[in-house]
Amino acid sequence: MSEPKVFYYETEIEWTKEKEGWIKGPSLPAVSVGAPPEFKGREGQWTPEHLFVASINTCFMLTFLAIAENSELPLVRLSSTAKGKLEKVPGSGYQITEIVLKPRVVIASVKDLERVPRILEKAKENCFVSNSIKSVIKLDPEVFHHQTPASPCPLG
Amino acid sequence: MSEPKVFYYETEIEWTKEKEGWIKGPSLPAVSVGAPPEFKGREGQWTPEHLFVASINTCFMLTFLAIAENSELPLVRLSSTAKGKLEKVPGSGYQITEIVLKPRVVIASVKDLERVPRILEKAKENCFVSNSIKSVIKLDPEVFHHQTPASPCPLG
Repeated sequence: MSEPKVFYYETEIEWTKEKEGWIKGPSLPAVSVGAPPEFKGREGQWTPEHLFVASINTCFMLTFLAIAENSELPLVRLSSTAKGKLEKVPGSGYQITEIVLKPRVVIASVKDLERVPRILEKAKENCFVSNSIKSVIKLDPEVFHHQTPASPCPLG
Repeated sequence: MSEPKVFYYETEIEWTKEKEGWIKGPSLPAVSVGAPPEFKGREGQWTPEHLFVASINTCFMLTFLAIAENSELPLVRLSSTAKGKLEKVPGSGYQITEIVLKPRVVIASVKDLERVPRILEKAKENCFVSNSIKSVIKLDPEVFHHQTPASPCPLG
């Protein structure tokens, strides 16, 4: 039997003033954080809600890259927008109930086009952070191939 | 009936090379992100797991600050360490199953000491992001008062 794999991830936050502080980790650069304007903070700094959505977005991208590599899918470009919806849920207060992921994938060759939707779906299902949250995750991808970067290819 | 309150939080990620990229948001500074060393990345940049733990840590701090303000609890200093445990869960792959929050609170006056544990507990229960995740959150606080900053006061 192999040893169970357990990993730990640590961050430290330090309050500075009002609704603001700095977050960092061992060997991670400090990032200015605070409450968003709608909760008595201000624009221009990372909020808990943005960090949460960023975590899903990053996990999704990295999982997609890993599966694309294993599937020998050559990529030219990859970006993704993630939008989280915070709303009141009766009986349990505010929750991020939904995250919409809009990946934009540019692949090297048109011949791989039909493989991409499955790989995107697998990335959504296998992301460690997606597995750890209650929010519903929706996928709204655009896929292009290198020869015609201006024309999106409809999926599905 | 008042209008239901819904807020949206957006981030964009751009792949740069290997298992790395930049994450940003509308009006948010870009942060370098990537996979951790144990998943074919490297040290020194924010990972999805660190962002997830940072989100909980920041949410907890801001919720505590809001409740402390409402409760008229004067604070001198506030910091918090959060450690997330990533492990394989049978049947559903890797998950962040647990987050241990270690807040360190310095209050202005010894007379408020007994109110702090309840406010910490409320902050844990009312954080929007905690409400959105499956991970178990544990609290392991240290509370000091300003007159004796070197002596922790045992809680409970």
